Amino acid sequence: MNTFGRIFRISIFGESHGEALGVVIDGCPPGIALSVDDFLPDLARRKSGARGTTPRREADLPEIVSGVFEGHTTGAPLTVLFRNENTRSGDYRNLVDHPRPGHADWVADQKFGGFQDYRGGGHFSGRITLGLVAAGVVAKKMVSGVNIRAEILSVGDCTDPAHFQDVVEEVLRTGDSVGGVVECVAEKLPVGWGEPFFDSVESLISHAVFAIPAIKAIEFGAGFAVARMKGSQNNDPIADASGRTLTNHAGGVNGGITNGNPLIFRVAVKPTASISRPQPTWNTASGQVEELTIKGRHDACIALRVPVIVEAVTAIVLADLSMIHK
Amino acid sequence: MNTFGRIFRISIFGESHGEALGVVIDGCPPGIALSVDDFLPDLARRKSGARGTTPRREADLPEIVSGVFEGHTTGAPLTVLFRNENTRSGDYRNLVDHPRPGHADWVADQKFGGFQDYRGGGHFSGRITLGLVAAGVVAKKMVSGVNIRAEILSVGDCTDPAHFQDVVEEVLRTGDSVGGVVECVAEKLPVGWGEPFFDSVESLISHAVFAIPAIKAIEFGAGFAVARMKGSQNNDPIADASGRTLTNHAGGVNGGITNGNPLIFRVAVKPTASISRPQPTWNTASGQVEELTIKGRHDACIALRVPVIVEAVTAIVLADLSMIHK
Amino acid sequence: MNTFGRIFRISIFGESHGEALGVVIDGCPPGIALSVDDFLPDLARRKSGARGTTPRREADLPEIVSGVFEGHTTGAPLTVLFRNENTRSGDYRNLVDHPRPGHADWVADQKFGGFQDYRGGGHFSGRITLGLVAAGVVAKKMVSGVNIRAEILSVGDCTDPAHFQDVVEEVLRTGDSVGGVVECVAEKLPVGWGEPFFDSVESLISHAVFAIPAIKAIEFGAGFAVARMKGSQNNDPIADASGRTLTNHAGGVNGGITNGNPLIFRVAVKPTASISRPQPTWNTASGQVEELTIKGRHDACIALRVPVIVEAVTAIVLADLSMIHK
Amino acid sequence: MNTFGRIFRISIFGESHGEALGVVIDGCPPGIALSVDDFLPDLARRKSGARGTTPRREADLPEIVSGVFEGHTTGAPLTVLFRNENTRSGDYRNLVDHPRPGHADWVADQKFGGFQDYRGGGHFSGRITLGLVAAGVVAKKMVSGVNIRAEILSVGDCTDPAHFQDVVEEVLRTGDSVGGVVECVAEKLPVGWGEPFFDSVESLISHAVFAIPAIKAIEFGAGFAVARMKGSQNNDPIADASGRTLTNHAGGVNGGITNGNPLIFRVAVKPTASISRPQPTWNTASGQVEELTIKGRHDACIALRVPVIVEAVTAIVLADLSMIHK
Repeated sequence: MNTFGRIFRISIFGESHGEALGVVIDGCPPGIALSVDDFLPDLARRKSGARGTTPRREADLPEIVSGVFEGHTTGAPLTVLFRNENTRSGDYRNLVDHPRPGHADWVADQKFGGFQDYRGGGHFSGRITLGLVAAGVVAKKMVSGVNIRAEILSVGDCTDPAHFQDVVEEVLRTGDSVGGVVECVAEKLPVGWGEPFFDSVESLISHAVFAIPAIKAIEFGAGFAVARMKGSQNNDPIADASGRTLTNHAGGVNGGITNGNPLIFRVAVKPTASISRPQPTWNTASGQVEELTIKGRHDACIALRVPVIVEAVTAIVLADLSMIHK
Repeated sequence: MNTFGRIFRISIFGESHGEALGVVIDGCPPGIALSVDDFLPDLARRKSGARGTTPRREADLPEIVSGVFEGHTTGAPLTVLFRNENTRSGDYRNLVDHPRPGHADWVADQKFGGFQDYRGGGHFSGRITLGLVAAGVVAKKMVSGVNIRAEILSVGDCTDPAHFQDVVEEVLRTGDSVGGVVECVAEKLPVGWGEPFFDSVESLISHAVFAIPAIKAIEFGAGFAVARMKGSQNNDPIADASGRTLTNHAGGVNGGITNGNPLIFRVAVKPTASISRPQPTWNTASGQVEELTIKGRHDACIALRVPVIVEAVTAIVLADLSMIHK
Repeated sequence: MNTFGRIFRISIFGESHGEALGVVIDGCPPGIALSVDDFLPDLARRKSGARGTTPRREADLPEIVSGVFEGHTTGAPLTVLFRNENTRSGDYRNLVDHPRPGHADWVADQKFGGFQDYRGGGHFSGRITLGLVAAGVVAKKMVSGVNIRAEILSVGDCTDPAHFQDVVEEVLRTGDSVGGVVECVAEKLPVGWGEPFFDSVESLISHAVFAIPAIKAIEFGAGFAVARMKGSQNNDPIADASGRTLTNHAGGVNGGITNGNPLIFRVAVKPTASISRPQPTWNTASGQVEELTIKGRHDACIALRVPVIVEAVTAIVLADLSMIHK
Repeated sequence: MNTFGRIFRISIFGESHGEALGVVIDGCPPGIALSVDDFLPDLARRKSGARGTTPRREADLPEIVSGVFEGHTTGAPLTVLFRNENTRSGDYRNLVDHPRPGHADWVADQKFGGFQDYRGGGHFSGRITLGLVAAGVVAKKMVSGVNIRAEILSVGDCTDPAHFQDVVEEVLRTGDSVGGVVECVAEKLPVGWGEPFFDSVESLISHAVFAIPAIKAIEFGAGFAVARMKGSQNNDPIADASGRTLTNHAGGVNGGITNGNPLIFRVAVKPTASISRPQPTWNTASGQVEELTIKGRHDACIALRVPVIVEAVTAIVLADLSMIHK
């Protein structure tokens, strides 16, 4: 389903080339100052204009359709709408019979029996994350005491931000794409958010993070490195009455619950599946493998646009936990 | 909360040293042959008796309290109960003031205001996973066409199963513990289970997997390696009308939906937090850091017992998806 | 919260005088033929133009914003939007300090701390039921084999439809309003929908029905009359292998589950709270009881517009049950 | 499903003649004093020993299996178990082919394909309400400031409590049963619990109330009488700054939200379906209508045992709303 959260609950909708897309945010407390302008900075970070991001240009102007009155949230469902304008549906007509490798084209056709909106990935499009970013803006206001920040750790093999653009230029030149790693840190979290087992912070964060298209892995704190560690190395000694630990291999979570140290996790973003180089794939019309060349406007490194989305889903989870904790 | 699933829904309860623990399974279809004996093999795999696993001995005999009549499930909630018998509560008395590093002792005390059952980790104990394994047995019967199998890939730095026991002996000798990696593969999955966004297979599997204590990371298919790959390398070419792909970097999932290829993921298990070597930690009574030596019975490598639990939560997710897919 | 349903799940949003209102429908299967025209008949029934219904005129034109492609549902969330156009916000300014008796003005102000959109009842407005009716149109298509029909049984003391309009004229003349009873019948229901206890048909129908503003009572089958009956009178004898019963005091439900006989229930609709006669009420500004005369455009008998809304929520519940039943 | 509530969430399980039945209560705050003795008064009210209630005698001793430590709730799931002891399964063998009129026997057989536990109604039994009463005891402690009380208003045609027993004696003498009306009042409720639309107090209370077997109708405040009233009669004038109203036709709820006046509702309880008089019913074995005489131990007036169950579900809803309101 397209709904997430227990008290602060969001529902996303829309397709890449449909009329509009957006989000309904339920459970938002009344009295939060909110205007269209508040959405613009994070939306701009998602849009990006850097080389390597899609040349498709959308205004991405949010319309607040409900839930705000005289500049404040009312406590009723808050709906934010984005109109699709710059859609070139013609680009995608030829993909019906040629499912793109690494895309959901083929499974969508199988699952929805041919009724899916196949234009630009339809409801599978990364464009739907606009609604996540919008909800994230509201969520960040709800947990304004928490400092949430995600950034790119690596692009391909490169871990030096000064050279990320070089890597992107290189894959652009070859008609290819490249993956990356994004790290998110949330500081100044209260102690005690989350629950053991199914509502552990890791369960909820990972649930939300894997809702972002192209994410294939997540690790908290020391992550996969813990598998090679001894307990005497991995255990974080508690240093004082505030619960501060000398190390933070746990990534800020014990037993599923925030321990007051920074929440830290990293996610792996796969290279954009759409590449302009020819690729072999099954042709459902001809019944054989044929070469497919994807036209259209695409990102060479989708990871560049992911940090603000990761921040958004993190804020969404934390906003919900903050309300449950009360 | 302690409930998971939409149609096939499980609720776990219990504490390490309480009267009993178990699981209520709602949404289980009628007519599945089920007896106490069906639970024993997986429970035995979880219990383990190998060196490096806890010397605490529990019969772990499941009692089917409701939902089964004349050898078959009835369609009503199915409850499986495990009595705690071999509890040595005295072992844990001294830990109230000495929160164990790497454990939930401190956050539990903060969150539950001192009312938590602190004996043996209480409701945070790995012992509660008995309920997960029991539910997994039922879930496996519901998706009996799917072949689910998890196994240990590495213990510490060692990737050779023939030498896993050596690594464990070494950490036992030094009063330490060690982590590991577990891989799970589900074969013969139908195409089309899961949804884009919040009910993606990755979202649901990771949600359930992080409910298992000690898991700190998960990756699907090529996982973190995708971050270093080009799109032309990572994309899985579709080879025939069945959706079979030549590679499986996606781990069997596109757009959150099973594509008919094997679902593959790996998880990192941290080293057991309880070690017999002295560790520094905050003493809440004295108000200073003091050395803590943990007595009691513990696993040296909890990863050894994790595979059957990972299988269980995987089966639980797939059983739910199978019912939603209908 | 503003969401209802487990698999077929609807989320309503909007305010009486805001930008727009509508509904997001998740879990709708792909392949259902759907166009704007399909919504018009039920929307027209809700709007009504009869004497005694509000003179406020709204086009109530639905805009399908997502989830439909080439004339069919896609399986992605279906969003239907209604713009508010004919809003006279000025009418409501003076009601901030004068909570209207029988309305939610006072509780809304207490609950939402003054941030609620007070214009025309805001999110409490009966206008929000447009989203319910829209979702009902889709739901009716999903359970097209079931024949759902609601109608007015009585207006005030009058049970003769030929004279309903006379009763309405009379209350209009006196600046008053009047209540009514609506009966809903769903025929050709399959056997076996619903569950014992919390997902009983009665639980789900009543949950949804009481979401309609102004409903204060519901009874199934013989309803309150069962309290005065003997078991030998009330029991419905089963007459043949189809489960047909000779009487239908149960209203088509046994143990929370449809028994194949018509589902029958009646609801009581209170008289419109807004009346043009002066009423005493607490004035929060002056701190004393004062006379309030409500201006604006109102229904004299809201019950006249309720049948199509009752049908809608019934269809919504049945559509969800039909999907769970599979 | 067998789960109810958003934060304070209960899951019931068990069958009339199975091993045990009970309830898991999740979301219960830590620190509430709770012992087995606390359950006994309400369990005794449910059991009743009056003439007209079933002669089946069960100890109904609750066993607290989890969630309580040193006399207080821990914040972990609280499980209460009741063993079935005095079961005479033989009584029900002959009912497999003779579905009892007014019971769920026939629909259960259709829905669960013959796998249902048919003994004593199995999971449809009123005996499962033991779990509701137990959860109600905990819920009452959570909303201890609210005064919840349900009582019988009428038995059959009789509204004089002094003569209720006479009515029961009469139906017992004739091998019949009789219905009744139960009224519940909750006083000293805070203002602001509940939400407009789907989480209205009426929606949640009615959802929970119809989970009680044998309830066929509910009305809030003036209830069905509002349908015959004018707005000028029905509107409750607000009398002072506390929100107190001069009348309470609304039953304490406006716009789905508590208004600080007493919450009042009435429910209709049908006559017990099991009567000892012969009844015609379809015989699935012979394929024709035959007379059925039900043996066994039954209530003549189930309404006598309903008040404490209605109180319990009311407390369960209010406890959940109290936590959401925070």
